Amino acid sequence: MTRVAVVGGGIIGLSIAAELLDRGADVTVYDPSPDGADGAWHVAAGMLAPGGESAFEYPHLTRLLEAGHELWPSFVAGLGDVGYDRAGTLSLALTADDVAEAAREWKHQKLTPLTGSQVRDLEPAISPRVRAGAFAAAEHQVDPRKIVAVLRERLTGRIIPRLITDISERDADDVVVIAAGYRTGALTGLPIRPVKGQVLRLRGEPGLLKHVIDGAADGRHVYLVPRADGEVVVGATQEERADRMPTAGGVHDLLRAALDLVPGLAEHELTEVTAGHRPGTPDNAPILGFLDDDRRVAVAAGHFRNGILLAPITARLIADLVLTGTADPILDAFAPGRFR
Amino acid sequence: MTRVAVVGGGIIGLSIAAELLDRGADVTVYDPSPDGADGAWHVAAGMLAPGGESAFEYPHLTRLLEAGHELWPSFVAGLGDVGYDRAGTLSLALTADDVAEAAREWKHQKLTPLTGSQVRDLEPAISPRVRAGAFAAAEHQVDPRKIVAVLRERLTGRIIPRLITDISERDADDVVVIAAGYRTGALTGLPIRPVKGQVLRLRGEPGLLKHVIDGAADGRHVYLVPRADGEVVVGATQEERADRMPTAGGVHDLLRAALDLVPGLAEHELTEVTAGHRPGTPDNAPILGFLDDDRRVAVAAGHFRNGILLAPITARLIADLVLTGTADPILDAFAPGRFR
Repeated sequence: MTRVAVVGGGIIGLSIAAELLDRGADVTVYDPSPDGADGAWHVAAGMLAPGGESAFEYPHLTRLLEAGHELWPSFVAGLGDVGYDRAGTLSLALTADDVAEAAREWKHQKLTPLTGSQVRDLEPAISPRVRAGAFAAAEHQVDPRKIVAVLRERLTGRIIPRLITDISERDADDVVVIAAGYRTGALTGLPIRPVKGQVLRLRGEPGLLKHVIDGAADGRHVYLVPRADGEVVVGATQEERADRMPTAGGVHDLLRAALDLVPGLAEHELTEVTAGHRPGTPDNAPILGFLDDDRRVAVAAGHFRNGILLAPITARLIADLVLTGTADPILDAFAPGRFR
Repeated sequence: MTRVAVVGGGIIGLSIAAELLDRGADVTVYDPSPDGADGAWHVAAGMLAPGGESAFEYPHLTRLLEAGHELWPSFVAGLGDVGYDRAGTLSLALTADDVAEAAREWKHQKLTPLTGSQVRDLEPAISPRVRAGAFAAAEHQVDPRKIVAVLRERLTGRIIPRLITDISERDADDVVVIAAGYRTGALTGLPIRPVKGQVLRLRGEPGLLKHVIDGAADGRHVYLVPRADGEVVVGATQEERADRMPTAGGVHDLLRAALDLVPGLAEHELTEVTAGHRPGTPDNAPILGFLDDDRRVAVAAGHFRNGILLAPITARLIADLVLTGTADPILDAFAPGRFR
């Protein structure tokens, strides 16, 4: 039986570990946080948007996002209720400048522009000031906290609350998978950096919003992810900073953009103010594969804004790699060696 | 020895109890919250502003506020470090409309208007957009949480964590003092209602602000109370609501006004988002004195926006009343009987 150590108990590490366990490996996850809640997943809203902006610059990433997106129905089928919701995403633009900017993305994604009133027909809570929008039927949502809870349950007894600071600590294992988010940089020397994101959680009567909202309001980008229970996740700032502090400016900008687009959110309770770190890479694409100089060590990190969307495909590809020793060709563009 | 029950362990109840204890009474405080932290004091910024707007309509209140203000130096002398700071308050007006509104209050308080650049000479962090201001040297600040901690320490063993729902429960005591904030309404039938206030706490490098800021920004009123340790208290909304939820709209309005006046606060950490209830009365003045139909029951509640400022004078006047049975003439205008 292959013995695998997974370093990192976030959504990537847990998805890989659960897949390996299903396929008969003897897997152990190492994560210093007792509930893994310092991971990016804990802050993440869980938008599943394969056509997102990050793929503009890296066509290989578009293919991976699309392939990853297709795995979601079967992935969640095995998990129970994890808030998987396919109502789709409304992209909004408040001002004329916002429309000019958004139109470029809508064109890239082959979405049909909608007028303000067409948008409000779909989602009556949208502000009358919103000028235009587009409907992205393929952009879904899921609740990352629910997924992690299910995966942790499945891996009961296999998650060790320990900080691994040197990969050689796990020399006794057949393979070590490094899925430690931005901390993978310090463990491997790979160029992965923390990109801070501040995220709010609001709560009110369910039903104000039916769709995910992904909008621009006076140049401020914001997304609103409404859960079935009345929670609305509002994100996210994008800052090249390593601290975890929510700031007055960050929270203000998110609330202002959210209220500009959906004024009815003003009466919602503000229940959580958090900040986390996306694992950023130089090309915004993840790093997936064996280290060139040590084929006993696989990396699965640097997913930047796409960690939730890519968790199922990462789990499948890395489990294949670990158990067969052979990389799927789709991984070629994401090999750690591309940064040497 | 006079046996006194004080119902309510907020800053009013504790100040009265400590004064009674000093003067030889056998005092017990009843408060259901283990640390008293559901009191208005826990949210309050601690501005000591005797010339505030609430006194416009009730000249008796102006006299009480001024008399109360004079007690502060001797009150804090007995308490140790409770953040008592006499640097004074800068009143600010952002837009032309804000100036028109503020000028009325500055005139009422006999303050000399300052230009925007005069304001920035006093406090360089003020936004260049601020048009005018005035300096109120007599408006000081204190940290209510520090005061309550000292008073609770002094009353160790005399604070019982119990909710009193009927005054007759304390029939065994010689006198019962009701100092239960807005909950005094339900206990006595007096017209005291909760007026919700949302308050934020920010934290950054100490020294950004030297003075308390009390400003209007595009019609939004905000105050900023900078503590010596780098905390800045940002308050407060004023809402006729009984819930304790911080809302997206309330937090947004506070942050927007704060950042409009002092842009450098954007990088401060947002450390606390709270809501509390001022005890409001029909004339915005407190209710102080024996109930007409039961001179064994004294009320000390309904301090609205002036609970911190009036704590020392309330303690002195109510202790006199309880121990001598005679009311100081200054109390005449605040008797419970005025609302029958």
